[in-house]
Amino acid sequence: MMVERLSELDRDEALDGLTEWDWDESRDAISRRFVFADFNEAFGFMTRVALLAEKADHHPEWSNVWNRVDIVLTTHDAGGLSARDIDMAEAIDALVG
Amino acid sequence: MMVERLSELDRDEALDGLTEWDWDESRDAISRRFVFADFNEAFGFMTRVALLAEKADHHPEWSNVWNRVDIVLTTHDAGGLSARDIDMAEAIDALVG
Repeated sequence: MMVERLSELDRDEALDGLTEWDWDESRDAISRRFVFADFNEAFGFMTRVALLAEKADHHPEWSNVWNRVDIVLTTHDAGGLSARDIDMAEAIDALVG
Repeated sequence: MMVERLSELDRDEALDGLTEWDWDESRDAISRRFVFADFNEAFGFMTRVALLAEKADHHPEWSNVWNRVDIVLTTHDAGGLSARDIDMAEAIDALVG
């Protein structure tokens, strides 16, 4: 499946709906930090994201330190942000309510 | 429980037994990269490490990109490497055989 990098217009429109995410122009990626009560909650969240990612076959770059999870989304095949990143960001946001 | 930073002597002895791990002097931390066949294997490994970490109440700083997991171990309470990091590194190594 061909994955297209979003045009600037589509990207700006998508980012309007993802106010909690930061856009990194240098990487054409979006990122968000999630903070939980403790490691148990943080890793529980990661497990849910892992299942989403595997199902969508679209995986984050992410890191975890104790109660904190940092997620970066970009589409290597498209050389930047694609609709798959926006869909994944929305699905992840839905997990945290 | 008081956790003591390892002396240089104890650290060098411990690192001799952890040949797959790199020591980062600037952070007084040890790190190792693990590479798996795919995300399924990588996250399966992370889940096992998470259970070890939670049981030991000693958690890694780590990141994952697709089939790759990078783990950093240090003991913030001790201001550097402690016996808890060595124990955790050995337990993690035991998972990958």
